Amino acid sequence: MASRISQQMAFITELDKLKGVLRRTSPIGSERRENSAEHSWQVVLCALILAEHSAESIDLMKVVKMLAIHDTVEIDVGDTFHYDKAAQTDLHEREGRAADRLFALLPEGQGSELKALWEEFEAKETPEARFAAGLDRMMPFVLNFHNAGGTWLEYKLTKEKVLSVNWEIEAGLPELGRWIRDLVEEADQKGFFADSLKQE
Amino acid sequence: MASRISQQMAFITELDKLKGVLRRTSPIGSERRENSAEHSWQVVLCALILAEHSAESIDLMKVVKMLAIHDTVEIDVGDTFHYDKAAQTDLHEREGRAADRLFALLPEGQGSELKALWEEFEAKETPEARFAAGLDRMMPFVLNFHNAGGTWLEYKLTKEKVLSVNWEIEAGLPELGRWIRDLVEEADQKGFFADSLKQE
Repeated sequence: MASRISQQMAFITELDKLKGVLRRTSPIGSERRENSAEHSWQVVLCALILAEHSAESIDLMKVVKMLAIHDTVEIDVGDTFHYDKAAQTDLHEREGRAADRLFALLPEGQGSELKALWEEFEAKETPEARFAAGLDRMMPFVLNFHNAGGTWLEYKLTKEKVLSVNWEIEAGLPELGRWIRDLVEEADQKGFFADSLKQE
Repeated sequence: MASRISQQMAFITELDKLKGVLRRTSPIGSERRENSAEHSWQVVLCALILAEHSAESIDLMKVVKMLAIHDTVEIDVGDTFHYDKAAQTDLHEREGRAADRLFALLPEGQGSELKALWEEFEAKETPEARFAAGLDRMMPFVLNFHNAGGTWLEYKLTKEKVLSVNWEIEAGLPELGRWIRDLVEEADQKGFFADSLKQE
Protein backbone atom coordinates (compact mmCIF):
# COMPACT_ATOMS: atom_id res chain seq x y z
CA MET A 1 0.00 0.00 0.00
CA ALA A 2 1.27 3.46 -0.88
CA SER A 3 2.32 5.63 2.07
CA ARG A 4 0.02 8.45 3.14
CA ILE A 5 2.47 10.98 1.69
CA SER A 6 2.56 9.15 -1.65
CA GLN A 7 -1.23 9.13 -1.81
CA GLN A 8 -1.43 12.80 -0.84
CA MET A 9 1.22 13.77 -3.37
CA ALA A 10 -0.61 11.79 -6.08
CA PHE A 11 -3.71 13.91 -5.36
CA ILE A 12 -1.74 17.19 -5.37
CA THR A 13 -0.01 16.17 -8.62
CA GLU A 14 -3.31 15.21 -10.29
CA LEU A 15 -4.89 18.52 -9.26
CA ASP A 16 -2.05 20.33 -11.05
CA LYS A 17 -4.25 19.74 -14.12
CA LEU A 18 -6.55 22.54 -12.91
CA LYS A 19 -3.87 24.91 -14.26
CA GLY A 20 -4.93 23.72 -17.71
CA VAL A 21 -8.73 23.96 -17.29
CA LEU A 22 -9.78 27.22 -18.92
CA ARG A 23 -12.68 29.37 -17.76
CA ARG A 24 -14.54 31.99 -19.80
CA THR A 25 -13.26 35.04 -17.94
CA SER A 26 -9.85 36.66 -18.44
CA PRO A 27 -7.44 38.11 -15.89
CA ILE A 28 -7.73 41.91 -15.74
CA GLY A 29 -6.03 43.51 -18.73
CA SER A 30 -5.22 40.17 -20.37
CA GLU A 31 -6.45 38.53 -23.56
CA ARG A 32 -5.98 34.96 -22.37
CA ARG A 33 -8.63 33.07 -20.43
CA GLU A 34 -7.94 32.39 -16.77
CA ASN A 35 -7.61 28.83 -15.51
CA SER A 36 -9.34 27.11 -12.61
CA ALA A 37 -6.18 27.00 -10.47
CA GLU A 38 -5.64 30.76 -10.41
CA HIS A 39 -9.39 31.28 -9.99
CA SER A 40 -9.33 28.94 -6.98
CA TRP A 41 -6.57 31.02 -5.38
CA GLN A 42 -8.55 34.18 -6.01
CA VAL A 43 -11.72 32.96 -4.32
CA VAL A 44 -9.71 31.63 -1.34
CA LEU A 45 -8.15 35.10 -1.06
CA CYS A 46 -11.64 36.66 -1.25
CA ALA A 47 -12.83 34.40 1.58
CA LEU A 48 -9.92 35.46 3.80
CA ILE A 49 -10.43 39.16 3.07
CA LEU A 50 -14.24 39.31 3.02
CA ALA A 51 -15.17 36.90 5.83
CA GLU A 52 -16.62 39.72 7.96
CA HIS A 53 -19.35 40.28 5.34
CA SER A 54 -20.85 36.79 5.57
CA ALA A 55 -24.61 36.79 6.11
CA GLU A 56 -24.25 34.08 8.74
CA SER A 57 -21.64 32.86 11.20
CA ILE A 58 -19.18 30.64 9.32
CA ASP A 59 -16.28 28.25 9.93
CA LEU A 60 -13.70 29.99 7.73
CA MET A 61 -11.37 26.97 7.53
CA LYS A 62 -14.23 24.92 6.12
CA VAL A 63 -14.84 27.65 3.52
CA VAL A 64 -11.15 27.70 2.57
CA LYS A 65 -11.09 23.93 2.09
CA MET A 66 -14.27 24.08 0.00
CA LEU A 67 -12.95 26.82 -2.25
CA ALA A 68 -9.50 25.27 -2.67
CA ILE A 69 -11.09 22.11 -4.11
CA HIS A 70 -14.43 23.42 -5.46
CA ASP A 71 -13.40 23.05 -9.12
CA THR A 72 -11.60 19.69 -8.76
CA VAL A 73 -14.14 17.78 -10.86
CA GLU A 74 -13.41 20.06 -13.83
CA ILE A 75 -10.27 17.98 -14.40
CA ASP A 76 -12.59 15.32 -15.83
CA VAL A 77 -15.62 17.31 -17.01
CA GLY A 78 -14.13 20.73 -17.91
CA ASP A 79 -15.44 24.14 -16.89
CA THR A 80 -19.16 24.66 -17.48
CA PHE A 81 -20.32 28.15 -18.43
CA HIS A 82 -23.18 29.11 -16.11
CA TYR A 83 -25.26 30.57 -18.95
CA ASP A 84 -24.82 27.52 -21.23
CA LYS A 85 -27.77 25.30 -20.26
CA ALA A 86 -27.12 22.69 -22.99
CA ALA A 87 -23.70 21.85 -21.50
CA GLN A 88 -25.41 20.95 -18.25
CA THR A 89 -27.05 17.72 -19.44
CA ASP A 90 -26.00 14.86 -17.15
CA LEU A 91 -23.55 17.30 -15.58
CA HIS A 92 -24.41 16.23 -12.05
CA GLU A 93 -23.75 12.54 -12.81
CA ARG A 94 -20.50 13.29 -14.67
CA GLU A 95 -19.28 15.48 -11.83
CA GLY A 96 -20.18 12.83 -9.28
CA ARG A 97 -18.09 10.23 -11.11
CA ALA A 98 -15.19 12.68 -11.32
CA ALA A 99 -15.41 13.38 -7.58
CA ASP A 100 -15.41 9.62 -6.85
CA ARG A 101 -12.25 9.12 -8.92
CA LEU A 102 -10.32 12.18 -7.75
CA PHE A 103 -10.95 12.16 -4.00
CA ALA A 104 -10.23 8.41 -3.91
CA LEU A 105 -6.59 9.28 -4.63
CA LEU A 106 -6.29 10.52 -1.03
CA PRO A 107 -6.05 8.42 2.15
CA GLU A 108 -9.60 7.30 2.91
CA GLY A 109 -10.64 9.60 5.76
CA GLN A 110 -9.15 12.65 4.09
CA GLY A 111 -10.70 11.84 0.71
CA SER A 112 -14.16 11.38 2.17
CA GLU A 113 -13.87 14.65 4.15
CA LEU A 114 -13.01 16.65 1.03
CA LYS A 115 -15.61 14.89 -1.11
CA ALA A 116 -18.25 15.74 1.49
CA LEU A 117 -17.11 19.37 1.44
CA TRP A 118 -17.36 19.43 -2.35
CA GLU A 119 -20.91 18.01 -2.14
CA GLU A 120 -21.77 20.59 0.52
CA PHE A 121 -20.48 23.37 -1.73
CA GLU A 122 -22.55 22.07 -4.65
CA ALA A 123 -25.75 21.83 -2.56
CA LYS A 124 -25.41 25.43 -1.26
CA GLU A 125 -27.52 24.62 1.80
CA THR A 126 -25.14 25.58 4.63
CA PRO A 127 -23.82 29.02 5.66
CA GLU A 128 -20.29 28.06 4.52
CA ALA A 129 -21.49 26.85 1.12
CA ARG A 130 -23.63 29.97 0.58
CA PHE A 131 -20.72 32.22 1.48
CA ALA A 132 -18.31 30.29 -0.78
CA ALA A 133 -20.78 30.18 -3.68
CA GLY A 134 -21.36 33.94 -3.36
CA LEU A 135 -17.63 34.61 -3.79
CA ASP A 136 -17.43 32.17 -6.70
CA ARG A 137 -20.26 34.07 -8.43
CA MET A 138 -18.85 37.46 -7.57
CA MET A 139 -15.42 37.25 -9.19
CA PRO A 140 -16.59 37.20 -12.86
CA PHE A 141 -18.49 40.46 -12.16
CA VAL A 142 -15.28 42.11 -10.97
CA LEU A 143 -13.09 40.74 -13.78
CA ASN A 144 -15.61 41.58 -16.53
CA PHE A 145 -16.09 45.09 -15.14
CA HIS A 146 -12.34 45.75 -15.22
CA ASN A 147 -12.13 44.20 -18.71
CA ALA A 148 -14.65 46.72 -20.13
CA GLY A 149 -17.39 44.09 -20.40
CA GLY A 150 -15.29 40.98 -21.00
CA THR A 151 -17.43 37.88 -21.40
CA TRP A 152 -20.64 39.93 -20.95
CA LEU A 153 -20.08 41.50 -24.36
CA GLU A 154 -18.32 38.48 -25.89
CA TYR A 155 -21.33 36.23 -25.15
CA LYS A 156 -23.88 39.02 -25.74
CA LEU A 157 -25.24 38.84 -22.20
CA THR A 158 -27.81 41.40 -21.13
CA LYS A 159 -27.71 43.20 -17.81
CA GLU A 160 -30.84 41.31 -16.73
CA LYS A 161 -29.28 37.93 -17.54
CA VAL A 162 -26.15 38.82 -15.59
CA LEU A 163 -28.13 40.13 -12.63
CA SER A 164 -30.15 36.91 -12.54
CA VAL A 165 -27.32 35.24 -10.61
CA ASN A 166 -26.79 38.16 -8.24
CA TRP A 167 -29.13 36.60 -5.65
CA GLU A 168 -26.45 33.98 -5.03
CA ILE A 169 -24.00 36.69 -3.98
CA GLU A 170 -26.64 38.37 -1.81
CA ALA A 171 -27.56 35.07 -0.14
CA GLY A 172 -24.00 34.67 1.14
CA LEU A 173 -22.84 38.29 1.42
CA PRO A 174 -25.73 40.81 1.38
CA GLU A 175 -23.62 43.98 1.54
CA LEU A 176 -21.28 42.71 -1.18
CA GLY A 177 -24.32 41.83 -3.31
CA ARG A 178 -25.42 45.47 -3.09
CA TRP A 179 -21.91 46.65 -3.91
CA ILE A 180 -21.96 44.44 -7.02
CA ARG A 181 -25.38 45.86 -8.02
CA ASP A 182 -23.83 49.34 -7.98
CA LEU A 183 -20.93 48.00 -10.08
CA VAL A 184 -23.43 46.57 -12.58
CA GLU A 185 -25.19 49.95 -12.85
CA GLU A 186 -21.87 51.62 -13.56
CA ALA A 187 -21.02 48.90 -16.10
CA ASP A 188 -24.37 49.48 -17.79
CA GLN A 189 -23.71 53.19 -18.10
CA LYS A 190 -20.33 52.40 -19.65
CA GLY A 191 -21.92 50.10 -22.25
CA PHE A 192 -20.48 46.84 -20.87
CA PHE A 193 -23.66 44.75 -21.53
CA ALA A 194 -25.17 43.53 -24.78
CA ASP A 195 -28.22 45.74 -24.28
CA SER A 196 -26.62 48.73 -22.63
CA LEU A 197 -26.77 50.98 -25.69
CA LYS A 198 -30.23 49.88 -26.82
CA GLN A 199 -31.67 51.03 -23.49
CA GLU A 200 -30.52 54.62 -23.87
CA MET B 1 -13.31 57.70 2.76
CA ALA B 2 -13.82 54.55 0.74
CA SER B 3 -16.03 51.89 2.34
CA ARG B 4 -14.38 48.80 3.78
CA ILE B 5 -15.72 46.73 0.88
CA SER B 6 -14.31 49.19 -1.67
CA GLN B 7 -10.89 49.05 0.00
CA GLN B 8 -10.99 45.26 0.20
CA MET B 9 -12.07 44.94 -3.43
CA ALA B 10 -9.28 47.32 -4.48
CA PHE B 11 -6.79 44.94 -2.82
CA ILE B 12 -8.34 41.85 -4.41
CA THR B 13 -8.38 43.57 -7.81
CA GLU B 14 -4.74 44.69 -7.48
CA LEU B 15 -3.67 41.15 -6.52
CA ASP B 16 -5.23 39.88 -9.76
CA LYS B 17 -1.87 40.98 -11.23
CA LEU B 18 -0.27 37.87 -9.66
CA LYS B 19 -1.87 35.96 -12.56
CA GLY B 20 0.63 37.76 -14.77
CA VAL B 21 3.78 37.25 -12.66
CA LEU B 22 5.65 34.33 -14.21
CA ARG B 23 7.75 31.84 -12.27
CA ARG B 24 10.50 29.59 -13.66
CA THR B 25 8.64 26.31 -13.28
CA SER B 26 5.97 24.98 -15.66
CA PRO B 27 2.71 23.19 -14.90
CA ILE B 28 3.10 19.43 -15.40
CA GLY B 29 3.10 18.54 -19.09
CA SER B 30 3.00 22.17 -20.20
CA GLU B 31 5.52 24.35 -22.03
CA ARG B 32 4.34 27.63 -20.52
CA ARG B 33 5.67 28.97 -17.22
CA GLU B 34 3.29 28.94 -14.29
CA ASN B 35 2.21 32.18 -12.65
CA SER B 36 2.27 33.19 -9.00
CA ALA B 37 -1.53 33.04 -8.63
CA GLU B 38 -1.84 29.37 -9.59
CA HIS B 39 1.29 28.58 -7.56
CA SER B 40 -0.31 30.27 -4.53
CA TRP B 41 -3.39 28.07 -4.90
CA GLN B 42 -1.20 24.99 -5.12
CA VAL B 43 0.73 25.69 -1.92
CA VAL B 44 -2.51 26.50 -0.06
CA LEU B 45 -3.83 23.13 -1.26
CA CYS B 46 -0.61 21.46 -0.07
CA ALA B 47 -1.02 23.05 3.37
CA LEU B 48 -4.57 21.72 3.69
CA ILE B 49 -3.59 18.21 2.56
CA LEU B 50 -0.21 17.88 4.30
CA ALA B 51 -0.85 19.64 7.64
CA GLU B 52 -0.43 16.38 9.58
CA HIS B 53 3.24 16.22 8.52
CA SER B 54 4.26 19.51 10.12
CA ALA B 55 7.32 19.20 12.36
CA GLU B 56 5.62 21.37 14.99
CA SER B 57 2.10 22.19 16.11
CA ILE B 58 0.70 24.87 13.76
CA ASP B 59 -2.26 27.22 13.41
CA LEU B 60 -3.39 26.09 9.95
CA MET B 61 -5.49 29.20 9.28
CA LYS B 62 -2.43 31.35 9.83
CA VAL B 63 -0.51 29.16 7.34
CA VAL B 64 -3.30 29.48 4.76
CA LYS B 65 -3.32 33.28 5.08
CA MET B 66 0.47 33.39 4.77
CA LEU B 67 0.52 31.22 1.66
CA ALA B 68 -2.40 32.99 -0.03
CA ILE B 69 -0.48 36.30 0.13
CA HIS B 70 3.16 35.11 0.28
CA ASP B 71 3.97 36.27 -3.27
CA THR B 72 2.05 39.58 -3.13
CA VAL B 73 5.17 41.74 -3.35
CA GLU B 74 6.08 40.13 -6.70
CA ILE B 75 3.47 42.44 -8.26
CA ASP B 76 6.05 45.22 -7.84
CA VAL B 77 9.38 43.34 -7.83
CA GLY B 78 8.70 40.25 -9.98
CA ASP B 79 9.52 36.65 -9.16
CA THR B 80 13.11 36.05 -8.02
CA PHE B 81 14.76 32.79 -8.98
CA HIS B 82 16.23 31.23 -5.83
CA TYR B 83 19.46 30.26 -7.56
CA ASP B 84 20.02 33.73 -9.11
CA LYS B 85 22.00 35.56 -6.43
CA ALA B 86 22.61 38.68 -8.56
CA ALA B 87 18.87 39.38 -8.74
CA GLN B 88 18.77 39.52 -4.96
CA THR B 89 20.61 42.86 -4.56
CA ASP B 90 18.43 45.24 -2.52
CA LEU B 91 15.66 42.66 -2.82
CA HIS B 92 14.71 42.96 0.83
CA GLU B 93 14.27 46.75 0.59
CA ARG B 94 12.35 46.56 -2.69
CA GLU B 95 10.04 43.90 -1.29
CA GLY B 96 9.48 45.95 1.86
CA ARG B 97 8.39 48.97 -0.19
CA ALA B 98 6.06 46.75 -2.25
CA ALA B 99 4.51 45.32 0.93
CA ASP B 100 3.98 48.84 2.31
CA ARG B 101 2.17 49.90 -0.85
CA LEU B 102 0.05 46.78 -1.39
CA PHE B 103 -1.15 46.02 2.13
CA ALA B 104 -2.03 49.71 2.62
CA LEU B 105 -4.84 49.19 0.10
CA LEU B 106 -6.75 47.27 2.80
CA PRO B 107 -8.57 48.70 5.84
CA GLU B 108 -5.87 49.47 8.39
CA GLY B 109 -6.18 46.60 10.87
CA GLN B 110 -6.55 44.02 8.12
CA GLY B 111 -3.63 45.40 6.12
CA SER B 112 -1.30 45.39 9.10
CA GLU B 113 -2.33 41.81 10.02
CA LEU B 114 -1.50 40.51 6.53
CA LYS B 115 1.70 42.54 6.27
CA ALA B 116 2.83 41.05 9.60
CA LEU B 117 2.03 37.55 8.27
CA TRP B 118 4.07 38.25 5.14
CA GLU B 119 7.01 39.41 7.28
CA GLU B 120 6.64 36.31 9.47
CA PHE B 121 6.72 34.10 6.37
CA GLU B 122 9.85 35.85 5.11
CA ALA B 123 11.65 35.52 8.47
CA LYS B 124 10.94 31.74 8.71
CA GLU B 125 11.30 31.83 12.48
CA THR B 126 7.91 30.44 13.59
CA PRO B 127 6.43 26.93 13.15
CA GLU B 128 3.83 28.28 10.70
CA ALA B 129 6.44 30.09 8.60
CA ARG B 130 8.74 27.04 8.51
CA PHE B 131 5.85 24.79 7.46
CA ALA B 132 4.70 27.26 4.78
CA ALA B 133 8.25 27.81 3.48
CA GLY B 134 8.79 24.04 3.26
CA LEU B 135 5.75 23.68 1.00
CA ASP B 136 6.83 26.65 -1.12
CA ARG B 137 10.25 25.01 -1.63
CA MET B 138 8.77 21.57 -2.23
CA MET B 139 6.51 22.27 -5.21
CA PRO B 140 9.27 23.00 -7.79
CA PHE B 141 10.78 19.58 -6.94
CA VAL B 142 7.47 17.89 -7.77
CA LEU B 143 6.83 19.91 -10.94
CA ASN B 144 10.38 19.50 -12.27
CA PHE B 145 10.33 15.76 -11.55
CA HIS B 146 7.10 15.32 -13.54
CA ASN B 147 8.48 17.54 -16.31
CA ALA B 148 11.50 15.24 -16.84
CA GLY B 149 13.91 17.72 -15.24
CA GLY B 150 12.19 20.98 -16.15
CA THR B 151 14.11 24.00 -14.85
CA TRP B 152 16.82 21.74 -13.35
CA LEU B 153 18.03 20.92 -16.83
CA GLU B 154 17.06 24.27 -18.38
CA TYR B 155 19.23 26.18 -15.88
CA LYS B 156 21.91 23.43 -15.72
CA LEU B 157 21.41 22.83 -11.99
CA THR B 158 23.30 19.97 -10.38
CA LYS B 159 21.73 17.55 -7.95
CA GLU B 160 23.87 19.05 -5.16
CA LYS B 161 22.71 22.58 -5.92
CA VAL B 162 19.07 21.47 -5.91
CA LEU B 163 19.49 19.48 -2.69
CA SER B 164 21.06 22.53 -1.02
CA VAL B 165 17.56 23.92 -0.38
CA ASN B 166 16.10 20.61 0.84
CA TRP B 167 16.86 21.49 4.48
CA GLU B 168 14.08 24.08 4.26
CA ILE B 169 11.57 21.34 3.46
CA GLU B 170 12.96 19.13 6.23
CA ALA B 171 12.79 22.00 8.75
CA GLY B 172 9.04 22.31 8.25
CA LEU B 173 8.07 18.76 7.22
CA PRO B 174 10.76 16.15 8.04
CA GLU B 175 8.97 13.13 6.55
CA LEU B 176 8.16 15.03 3.36
CA GLY B 177 11.79 16.15 3.13
CA ARG B 178 12.84 12.49 3.12
CA TRP B 179 10.20 11.68 0.51
CA ILE B 180 11.61 14.48 -1.66
CA ARG B 181 15.16 13.12 -1.19
CA ASP B 182 13.96 9.77 -2.59
CA LEU B 183 12.34 11.65 -5.50
CA VAL B 184 15.65 13.42 -6.17
CA GLU B 185 17.50 10.08 -6.24
CA GLU B 186 14.99 8.76 -8.76
CA ALA B 187 15.33 11.98 -10.79
CA ASP B 188 19.10 11.59 -10.75
CA GLN B 189 18.85 8.04 -12.09
CA LYS B 190 16.58 9.29 -14.87
CA GLY B 191 19.10 11.98 -15.86
CA PHE B 192 17.03 14.97 -14.74
CA PHE B 193 20.01 16.98 -13.38
CA ALA B 194 22.83 18.77 -15.18
CA ASP B 195 25.39 16.35 -13.74
CA SER B 196 23.33 13.15 -13.68
CA LEU B 197 25.07 11.60 -16.66
CA LYS B 198 28.59 12.74 -15.74
CA GLN B 199 28.30 10.89 -12.44
CA GLU B 200 27.74 7.50 -13.98
